[in-house]
Amino acid sequence: MVYSATIHVETNGFSDIHDLTREVVKAAAQSGIICGVAVIFVPGSTAGITTIEFESGAVHDLKQALERLAPMADTYEHNRRWGDGNGFSHVRAALLGPSLSAPIQNGQLVLGTWQQIILVDFDNRPRNRDVLVQLVGD
Amino acid sequence: MVYSATIHVETNGFSDIHDLTREVVKAAAQSGIICGVAVIFVPGSTAGITTIEFESGAVHDLKQALERLAPMADTYEHNRRWGDGNGFSHVRAALLGPSLSAPIQNGQLVLGTWQQIILVDFDNRPRNRDVLVQLVGD
Amino acid sequence: MVYSATIHVETNGFSDIHDLTREVVKAAAQSGIICGVAVIFVPGSTAGITTIEFESGAVHDLKQALERLAPMADTYEHNRRWGDGNGFSHVRAALLGPSLSAPIQNGQLVLGTWQQIILVDFDNRPRNRDVLVQLVGD
Repeated sequence: MVYSATIHVETNGFSDIHDLTREVVKAAAQSGIICGVAVIFVPGSTAGITTIEFESGAVHDLKQALERLAPMADTYEHNRRWGDGNGFSHVRAALLGPSLSAPIQNGQLVLGTWQQIILVDFDNRPRNRDVLVQLVGD
Repeated sequence: MVYSATIHVETNGFSDIHDLTREVVKAAAQSGIICGVAVIFVPGSTAGITTIEFESGAVHDLKQALERLAPMADTYEHNRRWGDGNGFSHVRAALLGPSLSAPIQNGQLVLGTWQQIILVDFDNRPRNRDVLVQLVGD
Repeated sequence: MVYSATIHVETNGFSDIHDLTREVVKAAAQSGIICGVAVIFVPGSTAGITTIEFESGAVHDLKQALERLAPMADTYEHNRRWGDGNGFSHVRAALLGPSLSAPIQNGQLVLGTWQQIILVDFDNRPRNRDVLVQLVGD
């Protein structure tokens, strides 16, 4: 059994972080899958998916670590060649990765109590994102 | 076909690293799945899953790189708001990610000869973790 | 329904980056799967899989960020014990991760327009890699 859902998110870019948990939990419930796997995937090369405790402190700290990993003001070959100024976005997105897999058990998505699924939009402008949720199981 | 297993791990926190390979290989064998996918997932926002050559040198080097990524002694907004002192744990966990997917072929989990599946517990105290192994295939 | 494909890649090591998109798209089309999930996995502890806009600028920038994450010339315990000089490779591979999951919808792999699937070979010598593509769905 396979079930698909799409989560539409309007972001501000610049490592804007959105909590997708409610929508993924809802998709898992609607799928009717009792036991299986959820894949959450963001198309595009300037965004990523991971989990975090979604409170403003940890969210702030993650943004700061990402700025250290690939500083916005560094020199990037991507910028030199294409002039779009989002070289830092591409590097951060490649390091974080565009997908997450999580289990579905007893008809419910399994997450820790303080663990939320997040979209991080690394681009240097507001974006509309369609995050795909793909559920496979019985 | 879907098969679930749980691996219980008692950790010491502070980037304590445990090799889960034997248990995941066993779950794949017990599942009866010939061809499919294994998802290994740790619930919680202060731990991560990846692979490494599980020998004490590489394990030490990974811990050191994680300390550089998000130093324990840095200032974290999470700590300022919640006082639990594990801001560094949340950042490291979000960057490493809580899940890993690996193939099952010919009834066996496929890994490199020197590649082991590990749990890294980033929290700042001992924890009991239940790592979930979800297997989907034919 | 489960379908497997193998992509053979000859690399130069030292963060050599290869675009696997064409082969993964082809495997998805050949599988006959209309709706499901693709798992791309590299066996071995010195390589990783992610996505990026595969143009020489962004590829160069990613290599530079990986060099900052785990510099080749640093001191590594792995090197001290085994003498193979690829301690930096193990650390980078563990941080990037060996797998990627992506959706298949309407019989096609879903990716962003400028998003390519890449193998990054971190080893300190040329390697032959067999990347596994595992497709599960209906």
